[in-house]
Amino acid sequence: MALTAAALIIGNEILTGKVVEQNVFVMARELFALGVELRRIIVCPDEVPMIVRDLRDLASSHDLVITSGGVGPTHDDVTIKAVAAAFDVPVVRAEVYESLLRAHHGERLTDMHLRMADVPQGCRLVTTSDMKWPTVVMRNVYVFPGVPQIFRHKFPVMREELKGTGRFHSRALYVGLDEPALALLLDQVSVAFPEVSVGSYLYWGDDADYRTKLTIDGRAQDAVERCFEALVAGIAPGMLVRVE
Amino acid sequence: MALTAAALIIGNEILTGKVVEQNVFVMARELFALGVELRRIIVCPDEVPMIVRDLRDLASSHDLVITSGGVGPTHDDVTIKAVAAAFDVPVVRAEVYESLLRAHHGERLTDMHLRMADVPQGCRLVTTSDMKWPTVVMRNVYVFPGVPQIFRHKFPVMREELKGTGRFHSRALYVGLDEPALALLLDQVSVAFPEVSVGSYLYWGDDADYRTKLTIDGRAQDAVERCFEALVAGIAPGMLVRVE
Repeated sequence: MALTAAALIIGNEILTGKVVEQNVFVMARELFALGVELRRIIVCPDEVPMIVRDLRDLASSHDLVITSGGVGPTHDDVTIKAVAAAFDVPVVRAEVYESLLRAHHGERLTDMHLRMADVPQGCRLVTTSDMKWPTVVMRNVYVFPGVPQIFRHKFPVMREELKGTGRFHSRALYVGLDEPALALLLDQVSVAFPEVSVGSYLYWGDDADYRTKLTIDGRAQDAVERCFEALVAGIAPGMLVRVE
Repeated sequence: MALTAAALIIGNEILTGKVVEQNVFVMARELFALGVELRRIIVCPDEVPMIVRDLRDLASSHDLVITSGGVGPTHDDVTIKAVAAAFDVPVVRAEVYESLLRAHHGERLTDMHLRMADVPQGCRLVTTSDMKWPTVVMRNVYVFPGVPQIFRHKFPVMREELKGTGRFHSRALYVGLDEPALALLLDQVSVAFPEVSVGSYLYWGDDADYRTKLTIDGRAQDAVERCFEALVAGIAPGMLVRVE
C-alpha cells in the first residue's frame, strides 16, 4: 500500500497575497518521486487553535503530515507550540539543539536564539550528514520552516525517512488538439484503465508547440504502458507532437 | 464585519508536483485588496466525494468560496458535478451558455464543446463587459478554471461582486537585523496592538539590502499607523533600511 501524506502550510503572508508560496511544488514533486501519495494541502493562518485542529485531523487520516512555516523566534512563529498542543505534550528545550545553537552563535547567543531549541516533548530530531540543523518530527508530523531556501535545503531529509517506499510510473503525451477533441477518447481510456490516473491539461498561449498535455501515473508499470499505447492509438498521428 | 473567504484548489497535477500552482497568489492578493479575509486554502484531488465534502464544509463556514480547477470537457473535470452534488441539485444545460458556445464555434460545435454549458441548477452566470465567458456562481461558491491565464482573465469579476466591502490598510518595514534581534520588540508590539496583524519574514540570501521584512495589516488605519511608529521607534535608526 502506498503511504499517504498531507501538507499544512502555515502563514498569513500566503493568505494575504504578500508572497508567492514556493514549498508546495518542491514537496509535491519530491513526494511523488518517493512514491508517497500527497492527498491534501491546507493553507491556514498563524493561529494556534486552527493549526491544532488541522494537525489532529490530518495526522489521524494520513500516514505523514508535513508542515511548512511558522518556525522561528518571533511572535508569529507558533507552529511548535501548536504541534505540542495537538499531541497534548508540553514544549521543552532540546539539549542537543541548544548545544548546536551555543556552538554556532558563541558569545553572541541570546534567549531569542535559544527559542529555536524549544520542541514538543517526545519528538525526534532528524538530520543527515549534509545538514547542520535538525528537523523536528513529532509522531507522524514533520516540521519544516517556511523560508523557501531553507525548506529546499532541509526537505531531502524525507528521502532518508522514506527509503524503500514503492515508486510511481509516469508517461506524458503532448497533443496538437484542444480538450473537446480529446474528451471522448479520455472518457474511454479512463474507464478502461481504472488502476491508473489520467490527467488532461490545456495549454493556453501561443508559445508552445502543443495544445493539451496528457499525463498517466500509476504504480503498475505495465498498466501505465498499456494506457499510454491506447492513447497513442487513439490520436491521429499528425496531432501527436511528442511523448515522454 | 469583514467578509471571509476560503479557496478550494482542485487538481491532481498540483498534488503530484507536475505543475506550479499559480492561482492562489492572484486570488489572495486580489481578495486582500478587496478587503476580504482569505482564511483557508485547500488543495484536493479530482475526486467528487472529497470535493463535495470540502465544499459543504467551506461554504457553511465562510462567506465566500472560490474554486480553481476541474472545469472543462474532459473526464478529470469534475468540479461542476461536485458543486451540484454539494448543494443537492442536478446538473442542467444553461441555455445562455449554450447560445454563446453555438455562436463561438458555429459549424464546428460538438457535444464535447457543449459540456461547458452544463451547470448546477439554480446557479448564477456572472460576467462583465470585458469578459465573454460567464463565471458560474452557486450560492456563495464561485467556480473558476484552473488554467492560470484564464483564471487571471476571469477573476476580476469578483471586483464587481464585492464592490463596497471595507479595505485593509498596510505598512511594511525592511530591517537590517535577523529575527532573533527583533523578537522581543515584536512580542511587545503584537501585545500592544491586538487589532492589527504583524508579520515577520526573514529573507534568506545575499541579494537583498535587508534581512527581515515586517508587515502590519489592519482595518483601522490609525491603529496600523500607531503600530508602525512603535516599530520604527524600536529599531536602531541605522538598521531601518526603508519603509512602505
